[in-house]
Amino acid sequence: MKYSVIGTGAVGGFYGAKLANAGFDVEFLLHSDYQFVKENGLKVLSCDGDFCLKNPKVFSSTTEMSKSDVVLVGLKSVNQELLYKILPPLLKENTLVILIQNGIGLEEDLQQKFPGLNIAAGLAFICSQKILPGIIEHLFYGSINLGNFSCKDKALFDSVLNDFLKAGVQAQEVEYYQARWKKAVWNMPFNGMTVVMNTTTDKLLNNPYTEKLIYDQMKEVIDAAQTLGVKGLDYSFADKMIEMTKAMIPYSPSMKLDYDFKRPMETYYLYTRPVAEALKAGFEMKKLAMLEAQLRFLG
Amino acid sequence: MKYSVIGTGAVGGFYGAKLANAGFDVEFLLHSDYQFVKENGLKVLSCDGDFCLKNPKVFSSTTEMSKSDVVLVGLKSVNQELLYKILPPLLKENTLVILIQNGIGLEEDLQQKFPGLNIAAGLAFICSQKILPGIIEHLFYGSINLGNFSCKDKALFDSVLNDFLKAGVQAQEVEYYQARWKKAVWNMPFNGMTVVMNTTTDKLLNNPYTEKLIYDQMKEVIDAAQTLGVKGLDYSFADKMIEMTKAMIPYSPSMKLDYDFKRPMETYYLYTRPVAEALKAGFEMKKLAMLEAQLRFLG
Repeated sequence: MKYSVIGTGAVGGFYGAKLANAGFDVEFLLHSDYQFVKENGLKVLSCDGDFCLKNPKVFSSTTEMSKSDVVLVGLKSVNQELLYKILPPLLKENTLVILIQNGIGLEEDLQQKFPGLNIAAGLAFICSQKILPGIIEHLFYGSINLGNFSCKDKALFDSVLNDFLKAGVQAQEVEYYQARWKKAVWNMPFNGMTVVMNTTTDKLLNNPYTEKLIYDQMKEVIDAAQTLGVKGLDYSFADKMIEMTKAMIPYSPSMKLDYDFKRPMETYYLYTRPVAEALKAGFEMKKLAMLEAQLRFLG
Repeated sequence: MKYSVIGTGAVGGFYGAKLANAGFDVEFLLHSDYQFVKENGLKVLSCDGDFCLKNPKVFSSTTEMSKSDVVLVGLKSVNQELLYKILPPLLKENTLVILIQNGIGLEEDLQQKFPGLNIAAGLAFICSQKILPGIIEHLFYGSINLGNFSCKDKALFDSVLNDFLKAGVQAQEVEYYQARWKKAVWNMPFNGMTVVMNTTTDKLLNNPYTEKLIYDQMKEVIDAAQTLGVKGLDYSFADKMIEMTKAMIPYSPSMKLDYDFKRPMETYYLYTRPVAEALKAGFEMKKLAMLEAQLRFLG
């Protein structure tokens, strides 16, 4: 099995490094950190134990990389046009592309560009950040859920799950569409609200007004998902997400970090697209559409 | 006719000074500026021509003031409990209290405290600010609409309108409840949004996303008003308000100034109360309730 990682950052870099560290054949695409990692290796400072890939297979262009059985995509979803451009050299018959990205509609859009491609959703549950070139800090969690979007090769899909498990990464199969929307239940309220209110998850939940608002926004996402036919998702999941977040340390979601570091925000796949999909199905996400507009105002 | 002004600030001070400057008998209640205005007078730097009251009748307590025919209340609505406390010494049989304040529910609450009182709503259309102790800058507009809430003495109500006209202030009678909600159509979107997005009216309308959001929020206020039985108010009023605001210079509404200067915001009468009244009547103001929660988070 040949793996490649496009987007060797806090998330793609972590999962790729776990596989490589367990002995799997992994090629990494890097951009700004290419030279540094080539010379110094890729380090993971992990709550589960630090490790270092001394000589990872690193590349600065996909044209120099091998055709892969599995491509892990860890790019921010603001770069999908770039992904479509650099993906082809990695593809052979049956290649499985796993989008470890945030949002709704990513798999559908990729499929439209590459009709025959095997695609899966990778839902990362991890708190990690790239703290320096070639150094990823892994703070907590670290599992990954895989949802089969269009992978016709079930054996290939299952072997990826197995490889993750062998590499010490908790991995399981989930229903792709439900999993995407379940993640949106947390992502849509907290990403945008921490940006617009310039705060962290804990402070939003410590104020009774914004706690109720976050809860109402979660219910709105659940209503949208139900309208779109997602089964097995009801308001009790919002209660669960609120409780889970209360148990977490004060946290800045990825969009807040993007905003703070003046990187583009993933507004399209996190807000515009799910709001539009729900509207098409007849449900207006009023509060999340408002949050989208506020985010668009900020850039 | 004896007038008194409670809250001699940018708004109450302006209208009171216009009356006094025209020769009407006006007593002013001042707090922090009392000594300064007693010694130096009250100055209005007005786009319609500057003027100065050299020896205004100023007081630091209503207990020293005369009983009045008309009380103009220019206090911020965050001080209603104080108003209820200091109002009685000014009242005689038939006194008309005009609340030149922002929000929904002000007259109802005052009436509950003073069941027999004559009350009117004063809707100020003015851009003015207190720039220094005893100095009010009047930038543009300057009319006032009066809505009769519970004034049984029609002659008294009309004579106030006449006195304003004599003092060079455009004044007309309006239907109280419709007028309050019409003002909310502008106030609710722009006050909160300029605070939460830390911006001015023009920038919100220059961005297509927030322009649409402001428009949708205006329609939500109109829907709420219609649910509450307000007649003669439809979406065309939102178009009108958007156009009017586009024609204005970049503007920071009063709540934005309050927030910037770390004064308490009028969140209750501008948001909490109208949202609650609409909900009681069966209409949920989703976007404005969200804005309320965001304002409550900010303080």
